[in-house]
Amino acid sequence: MNRLDVTEAIFAIKKEKELSWEGIAEAIGMSTVWTTSACLGMNSCPSGAATKLVEFLGLPEEATRVLMEYPTKEWDKSVPQDPLIYRLYEVVGVYGDTLKEVIQEKFGDGIMSAIDFSMEVDKEENPKGDRVILTLNGKFLPYKAW
Amino acid sequence: MNRLDVTEAIFAIKKEKELSWEGIAEAIGMSTVWTTSACLGMNSCPSGAATKLVEFLGLPEEATRVLMEYPTKEWDKSVPQDPLIYRLYEVVGVYGDTLKEVIQEKFGDGIMSAIDFSMEVDKEENPKGDRVILTLNGKFLPYKAW
Amino acid sequence: MNRLDVTEAIFAIKKEKELSWEGIAEAIGMSTVWTTSACLGMNSCPSGAATKLVEFLGLPEEATRVLMEYPTKEWDKSVPQDPLIYRLYEVVGVYGDTLKEVIQEKFGDGIMSAIDFSMEVDKEENPKGDRVILTLNGKFLPYKAW
Amino acid sequence: MNRLDVTEAIFAIKKEKELSWEGIAEAIGMSTVWTTSACLGMNSCPSGAATKLVEFLGLPEEATRVLMEYPTKEWDKSVPQDPLIYRLYEVVGVYGDTLKEVIQEKFGDGIMSAIDFSMEVDKEENPKGDRVILTLNGKFLPYKAW
Amino acid sequence: MNRLDVTEAIFAIKKEKELSWEGIAEAIGMSTVWTTSACLGMNSCPSGAATKLVEFLGLPEEATRVLMEYPTKEWDKSVPQDPLIYRLYEVVGVYGDTLKEVIQEKFGDGIMSAIDFSMEVDKEENPKGDRVILTLNGKFLPYKAW
Amino acid sequence: MNRLDVTEAIFAIKKEKELSWEGIAEAIGMSTVWTTSACLGMNSCPSGAATKLVEFLGLPEEATRVLMEYPTKEWDKSVPQDPLIYRLYEVVGVYGDTLKEVIQEKFGDGIMSAIDFSMEVDKEENPKGDRVILTLNGKFLPYKAW
Amino acid sequence: MNRLDVTEAIFAIKKEKELSWEGIAEAIGMSTVWTTSACLGMNSCPSGAATKLVEFLGLPEEATRVLMEYPTKEWDKSVPQDPLIYRLYEVVGVYGDTLKEVIQEKFGDGIMSAIDFSMEVDKEENPKGDRVILTLNGKFLPYKAW
Amino acid sequence: MNRLDVTEAIFAIKKEKELSWEGIAEAIGMSTVWTTSACLGMNSCPSGAATKLVEFLGLPEEATRVLMEYPTKEWDKSVPQDPLIYRLYEVVGVYGDTLKEVIQEKFGDGIMSAIDFSMEVDKEENPKGDRVILTLNGKFLPYKAW
Amino acid sequence: MNRLDVTEAIFAIKKEKELSWEGIAEAIGMSTVWTTSACLGMNSCPSGAATKLVEFLGLPEEATRVLMEYPTKEWDKSVPQDPLIYRLYEVVGVYGDTLKEVIQEKFGDGIMSAIDFSMEVDKEENPKGDRVILTLNGKFLPYKAW
Amino acid sequence: MNRLDVTEAIFAIKKEKELSWEGIAEAIGMSTVWTTSACLGMNSCPSGAATKLVEFLGLPEEATRVLMEYPTKEWDKSVPQDPLIYRLYEVVGVYGDTLKEVIQEKFGDGIMSAIDFSMEVDKEENPKGDRVILTLNGKFLPYKAW
Repeated sequence: MNRLDVTEAIFAIKKEKELSWEGIAEAIGMSTVWTTSACLGMNSCPSGAATKLVEFLGLPEEATRVLMEYPTKEWDKSVPQDPLIYRLYEVVGVYGDTLKEVIQEKFGDGIMSAIDFSMEVDKEENPKGDRVILTLNGKFLPYKAW
Repeated sequence: MNRLDVTEAIFAIKKEKELSWEGIAEAIGMSTVWTTSACLGMNSCPSGAATKLVEFLGLPEEATRVLMEYPTKEWDKSVPQDPLIYRLYEVVGVYGDTLKEVIQEKFGDGIMSAIDFSMEVDKEENPKGDRVILTLNGKFLPYKAW
Repeated sequence: MNRLDVTEAIFAIKKEKELSWEGIAEAIGMSTVWTTSACLGMNSCPSGAATKLVEFLGLPEEATRVLMEYPTKEWDKSVPQDPLIYRLYEVVGVYGDTLKEVIQEKFGDGIMSAIDFSMEVDKEENPKGDRVILTLNGKFLPYKAW
Repeated sequence: MNRLDVTEAIFAIKKEKELSWEGIAEAIGMSTVWTTSACLGMNSCPSGAATKLVEFLGLPEEATRVLMEYPTKEWDKSVPQDPLIYRLYEVVGVYGDTLKEVIQEKFGDGIMSAIDFSMEVDKEENPKGDRVILTLNGKFLPYKAW
Repeated sequence: MNRLDVTEAIFAIKKEKELSWEGIAEAIGMSTVWTTSACLGMNSCPSGAATKLVEFLGLPEEATRVLMEYPTKEWDKSVPQDPLIYRLYEVVGVYGDTLKEVIQEKFGDGIMSAIDFSMEVDKEENPKGDRVILTLNGKFLPYKAW
Repeated sequence: MNRLDVTEAIFAIKKEKELSWEGIAEAIGMSTVWTTSACLGMNSCPSGAATKLVEFLGLPEEATRVLMEYPTKEWDKSVPQDPLIYRLYEVVGVYGDTLKEVIQEKFGDGIMSAIDFSMEVDKEENPKGDRVILTLNGKFLPYKAW
Repeated sequence: MNRLDVTEAIFAIKKEKELSWEGIAEAIGMSTVWTTSACLGMNSCPSGAATKLVEFLGLPEEATRVLMEYPTKEWDKSVPQDPLIYRLYEVVGVYGDTLKEVIQEKFGDGIMSAIDFSMEVDKEENPKGDRVILTLNGKFLPYKAW
Repeated sequence: MNRLDVTEAIFAIKKEKELSWEGIAEAIGMSTVWTTSACLGMNSCPSGAATKLVEFLGLPEEATRVLMEYPTKEWDKSVPQDPLIYRLYEVVGVYGDTLKEVIQEKFGDGIMSAIDFSMEVDKEENPKGDRVILTLNGKFLPYKAW
Repeated sequence: MNRLDVTEAIFAIKKEKELSWEGIAEAIGMSTVWTTSACLGMNSCPSGAATKLVEFLGLPEEATRVLMEYPTKEWDKSVPQDPLIYRLYEVVGVYGDTLKEVIQEKFGDGIMSAIDFSMEVDKEENPKGDRVILTLNGKFLPYKAW
Repeated sequence: MNRLDVTEAIFAIKKEKELSWEGIAEAIGMSTVWTTSACLGMNSCPSGAATKLVEFLGLPEEATRVLMEYPTKEWDKSVPQDPLIYRLYEVVGVYGDTLKEVIQEKFGDGIMSAIDFSMEVDKEENPKGDRVILTLNGKFLPYKAW
């Protein structure tokens, strides 16, 4: 079994058992976003999470080690096309310089880590149309002089 | 005066008077991220905000109309290079499919609007290193069949 | 069965039964453009349409759920090459700035949604050569300040 | 005076006299979309329209000949970035194959001309949000065998 | 059978029977360039030509319908590499602006159609080295104002 | 004076004296396409043609030497955008493989030279719409084995 | 004075006074690589280093503040061309996957920071040809699960 | 057996026997980075190393010759995406000009060879977070005049 | 058998019989570079060479005709990555304008043919390190005016 | 004076004094190709050559130091377009893999240096058309294992 096999197996089981990403996440005691990304093969599982995932979904034993492998994180389209993903890319394009100004004003010269990082998706119900609340939480890393 | 002139004038005044984006935003009663993006020329100002901005910064009268113009929102590098901005691009690359799964599980088939949209930057103090909290808030737009 | 299988099955049946997209659309009570895009896998079917489509075409039962899945909307060539599609791209290139001027003059700062959106193709008979009438209908989304 | 000078002169006069594209179009008896594109330098004016445009706006005499020149129609970004224009590009990407199916079903093997072509923008008022109606009208050109 | 199968079958038969494109074209009463492009899958055959082609080459019956399908005209390399094809691309690059000047001087503002179009290849014997004569024949399409 | 200066001077004189490319070509005894390309700076003039061109147009003396310089032949857009030029690119894309088959069938393994090369533009009057006749004439260059 | 002015001033002074990067670095008590990058405008100076640099080089007072600004770190060629820089790019291409294997074997799943990072260049004299020793020193950042 | 087969066999054995790259390298008496790159197929093995590798890992006999073949060194993404590899690319982008200045100041006009080259990865333990030490060692190659 | 099959067969036989390109070339009485390129499928064999090659290597009879086919000459990476090939590309980049100056000074306005062309690789033994001597020999083709 | 100024000054003087690259090269006792590349700013001059060049051409004193600066070697088009330069690129594309086979067969695993490198252009007179002889001479650099 390789990563792709495991991801496909997860999708098949999820469809068959009519599970949700949220339900899977809850079952293994991790967040929904992280759990989904681990299932899609974009994050490695710590051994505890891997074991629980295999157990909960009824994946073959050998999937545990595969889930723990360190993935190569790559994506297909350097400018994404699916409208949901493109809108996020557009936000980075339109607001990139703005975020640089605001973050560096608040924190000094440095960046927001994409490694020591977490993210959540929430739903805000709203009579004019529900709203997606996306929260990115990354450690500030100051540039160092040497 | 065109957009670029106004942006440069704002940067010059901001430097001279040692203002912060946060201070400017407060003075005109808008959020920091939006105010910064309007000053960088990536959002048009409603007439009230334009007037206040001109007044507070001491910009020439004609800047008001320029600030109210509808900008062409474009960026230079289709894959950004500045590390602060690249990390956001990387998040979209690494987590794009994950966010599609999670958002569409929560909301149905559709996208998060980048137009009916707001964003905030917060600072979470933390002994292990402060953290940048980035909150994106966009209206969910369902696809329609016809 | 995955999306591709369903699309191929539809093409095969359409060929065999000598159906037209217009006929299929009529049978399921939806528009021709939308129905075609759903069959090509670029839109998800609401459950009613999926059921009718499966029934009308005699697709296997499991196709219903596949037709209801939320597709990843991607295309192969970032600059299209087939002449019919390229001409549409050319129209966007040649008239893009013009449309920005005209739409924003009529509606204010904002965009035409490509999500809350429909499109029709009509034929105008004309002795000098028939004409294709393409009508795009999208909700205007104003930018918001915050 | 070259094309760019004329376009800039038109923008300056339009701003100063607070004219609209619609108003200019009406004054010269042409459609709004075409008039705007001619002013932006993406279409050549027939001599009558050029004369009227120069007169109505009070442009220098020599602008007439410039407006009649045959423009080189080029655009800067092969994948557009401004959200209003990108959404149109996205429509071509998402619906390109669909339109090929539907147009060729209705008309036979061929394309919609982007040369023998016109386009209109209309506003449909709607309590849930006004809608942009974009109508493209192009002659069908059948492929020929020889 | 799909397009590719038919094209491969034609190549196999052509090789086996030692036919030439010119011979095939003659047999079906069409030009060599068009016949070749139809066999390569870049043009659809009118029903008469399809029938004759199937008959003359001894292709399976079902190839007739495939040859009549409307092809998606795409190519692999946006800048071609094979030297024979690159030289043609180079001619377009080197002489593109020249042809725009000359054609529009002779015909007015407009283009040469690539749809209502034919092309021939001839051989001019010459003691210093034979010459390839390539003749492109396309309808002039004037831009229209509206 | 450099190439660009000379080209601009030619355009200015041509406009002022209301000359045509055809007229200029005739005056110097060369073809229209070649003369235009030399004026646009994409071909070097033999000394006779340079002298006649300078004389006929009344260009400054030093232009003679500039017209005789060997130009760097480059173009801006690797995929052209102006519709007139794009259509030629499209022809190369759609018919490239076809031309390779047909030319190599007639001549053997080799290419059509783009250096030992000439081209003409003709107008074929036609009640259904005049036609552009483009004739490319290039020496066949066989590949050599060694 | 902006960044570019300061960088140019530094180059001019360095040339005139025949200084070396190493000498400048020593004078301000920082490393050679970092000092050079700060002078080239790719790193911001802490206030102490900025003051010393201005003093040592005799730059105008206002350069201090410019040197302390947070730079936008961008480069021109996404694939570098200068042979010295290309060789480094080639090393990343050839050994990228190898480094991923070796670093993650030694440290676990994570990356080497390019922010909490320093670099030195040393010269190893060698009779067969001196050798460049490049030492990169970056904090290991483990991915976190959440 | 081709390169890919050998690489896959090595990964499978390494996983099964729970070997590390460091252990494999030690067993054959070569460095870890080089050994890993040879196993990944990016360097050819001298015959001694190939023999030892085959023996130590228990690879089939014929793998020896494959390991000795001269590889084609290519990579998939001209701008890498995996964060670990991208950070190295970013270092080249941000510090490329700096390294050119510093290396050429120390050595004269020339480059650091990527062929007569070695590299090591070390771990520096650090209470604030361990550090990756990457050492590149390349022969300086001076440009020659001729 | 197609081109790829023949190339693979040649590589397999060459490996098995421990032949060299030089030995194969000698056996068929052609140069090493040309023979190698014909075996790699980048040149067509004249019938004599094809027959000898098939005989010498013991290829199946039908390979003769395949070796005589006219190849489509394409390459995968528009900017090559393998260091040996990249260095040649770098030479073209660094010395391209220089070669244009020198060749056109010696020969007049024109180019070096890549079709009526041959190339040799020689080895110059040298105590400081052997040297590769690459000789390109192409017919000069003058531009013609018409 | 910077590089560009010096290059332009050299071109102006060369034109005025009707010098050739060959003549300049002879005067300073270096080869034609290298001298031309140094004048175009793609190679740095050793101090002797710089002094002689300044003297021979009558360049201002300060040009000496500029000619000795280490240039950044970059080119504009990653795929060249001028036909003379493109043909060289095409040779690299068509024969790249062939040269890799032949060079590595003769020398072992390694590359031809583009740094320890020289090149000559010769003219071979030939009644069928003169021939350009391009000789590249680069040190072979073997890969090293470590």
